[in-house]
Amino acid sequence: MSDNLITSKCRIIVDAMGGDFAPQNAVRGAIEALNSDPSIELFLTGRKNDIRSVLDEFNLSFDDDHIINTEEVIDMCDSPTNALKTKKDSSIVVGATRVKNGLADAFVSAGNTGAMMAASTLLMGRIKGVGRPTIGAPIPSQTGVCNLFDVGASVDSKPQHLVEYAIMGSIYVEEIDGIKSPKVGLLSVGEEESKGNELTLKALKMLKEIKNINFIGNVEGKDILGGKADIIVCDGYVGNILLKFAESFLGILKVKVKQFAFKSLLNKIKVLLMKGTLKQVLSDFNAEDYGGTPLLGVKGISIIGHGSSSVTAIRNMVLKAKEMHDKQLLQKFEKALSDYGN
Amino acid sequence: MSDNLITSKCRIIVDAMGGDFAPQNAVRGAIEALNSDPSIELFLTGRKNDIRSVLDEFNLSFDDDHIINTEEVIDMCDSPTNALKTKKDSSIVVGATRVKNGLADAFVSAGNTGAMMAASTLLMGRIKGVGRPTIGAPIPSQTGVCNLFDVGASVDSKPQHLVEYAIMGSIYVEEIDGIKSPKVGLLSVGEEESKGNELTLKALKMLKEIKNINFIGNVEGKDILGGKADIIVCDGYVGNILLKFAESFLGILKVKVKQFAFKSLLNKIKVLLMKGTLKQVLSDFNAEDYGGTPLLGVKGISIIGHGSSSVTAIRNMVLKAKEMHDKQLLQKFEKALSDYGN
Repeated sequence: MSDNLITSKCRIIVDAMGGDFAPQNAVRGAIEALNSDPSIELFLTGRKNDIRSVLDEFNLSFDDDHIINTEEVIDMCDSPTNALKTKKDSSIVVGATRVKNGLADAFVSAGNTGAMMAASTLLMGRIKGVGRPTIGAPIPSQTGVCNLFDVGASVDSKPQHLVEYAIMGSIYVEEIDGIKSPKVGLLSVGEEESKGNELTLKALKMLKEIKNINFIGNVEGKDILGGKADIIVCDGYVGNILLKFAESFLGILKVKVKQFAFKSLLNKIKVLLMKGTLKQVLSDFNAEDYGGTPLLGVKGISIIGHGSSSVTAIRNMVLKAKEMHDKQLLQKFEKALSDYGN
Repeated sequence: MSDNLITSKCRIIVDAMGGDFAPQNAVRGAIEALNSDPSIELFLTGRKNDIRSVLDEFNLSFDDDHIINTEEVIDMCDSPTNALKTKKDSSIVVGATRVKNGLADAFVSAGNTGAMMAASTLLMGRIKGVGRPTIGAPIPSQTGVCNLFDVGASVDSKPQHLVEYAIMGSIYVEEIDGIKSPKVGLLSVGEEESKGNELTLKALKMLKEIKNINFIGNVEGKDILGGKADIIVCDGYVGNILLKFAESFLGILKVKVKQFAFKSLLNKIKVLLMKGTLKQVLSDFNAEDYGGTPLLGVKGISIIGHGSSSVTAIRNMVLKAKEMHDKQLLQKFEKALSDYGN
């Protein structure tokens, strides 16, 4: 394979050790993505023997020279900043470093979210014009999906950071989700311009001045599921709490259904009759197909998946990385931020 | 009626003009409360003719001298601070002023929430030791109810304010909900003590030092419904957004069910079979029985109800005011805050 050919392809590294079901789901998902788009140049980081075992078990063929052996593993419970310092030969550190060094375009992991964010931010560095990278989350809404930025890349944001989230989020949602001129809302405690906290009152003024985004003003908590905006920007503290709160809703619904069923035999029958329908109704809330969320604003494509990522989720994360690369999102972020004056 | 007798009773004023279904629901709910506890001395504020019409229509007897006639009405869309200045002869301003002047112990309204908060805070004043009053919301959880303080009385709190919410919230939940030594959590982005924003990191240290509350440390967004704490304290900006987000869940569930039903005749039948069961399962999420939430920290009992309050909700709000009075919550707040050093 000539050097020329390598660089013309989109080079994606997948963290084979990342996620609760690693290496199996990570390896299988990565290979599935490769099979559905052979123009990807795929690399796997992790313990070579473990990776090879999965490949053999599932009868998958994969070049040995595209497996980057790393001995250490950053666990879900490792402290992110500590892990970066002490586990230099881990799949996450090595993956992010290779992107930084220009040896790959994208890094995909369902491993320790904090470590993945720290590695991407600290090792890849930030795009010119970005004060803080942001991680978004797609939340199913009444009309489609609402993308919430930021859901925890950082806290105590400055107004300027919310502006960056709005600019990068708009480009991402337009290019990847295909929504023309996506509506951007600012999360606040009331629709009126006078409502908000110190951060949002200042951010509101700045967001109103930006020409290239479709800013619709303040939105409230009820507007997230209400589908009023395609993108909602907020500080990572509130975004993170909202996301975890939203994710817990289906869990409590299940508990309530169980509690109801336990009350009587009649209830048990009622629940049996309802279960299938309820599952179908709630199928939109299934996070799997969304396939991880990118950390926007770093100099490289970094896609972070849920620890429980399935094979399909990993596959979709890799394909999303490919799409972000092909559509030159990083270059578009930098241009838009420079046009804005950052 | 002698003066002596008046002051020994709990004197509660109900805003007859407050709520989307006023004066009917307010008047009927207030009379229902009076019937279930005749030891209450009830007053109604609002347009006397309108109140009298409801009383006549539903054949309810009520002393004319306990109707406090006010000509102006603060609408749901009125700006709170403006309304206080320009509508001095409104049911909300007159009701709060009478509590301030010692002519009543409690004021109950399902009217304009902002105006009710502003009137209670500015007219009644704050209890000694309270920097900021707080409004809580009971959110149904896996194990019972989680009381979230603050859900919008103020934003940009200082750590000290979260401490006050924790102290008053603990007393309220122990006395009114009957939960012995209720667990208090601090809303943050991770369980670890190192996780949080500037506000929560400082508040955490202060909360750990308080002897008379059962502080369990940081809790996350998923722990609200998860039932990890009986009380969760947070800044009013995030609390308000969370509350409105939570309230919108059932709405989107209904929309999703409808969308599913519209897809085919079979789906329509499935939904018909499921509807009743789902309603029963979700009955805990019915806000009506909670009967409004008090604004804690003001010098007087102030209970604020949802605009859509039913007759039962208003009844429960009045009975809650009575209970807060009988259990001397205001005195207990002041003592606890003074013991803490405020």
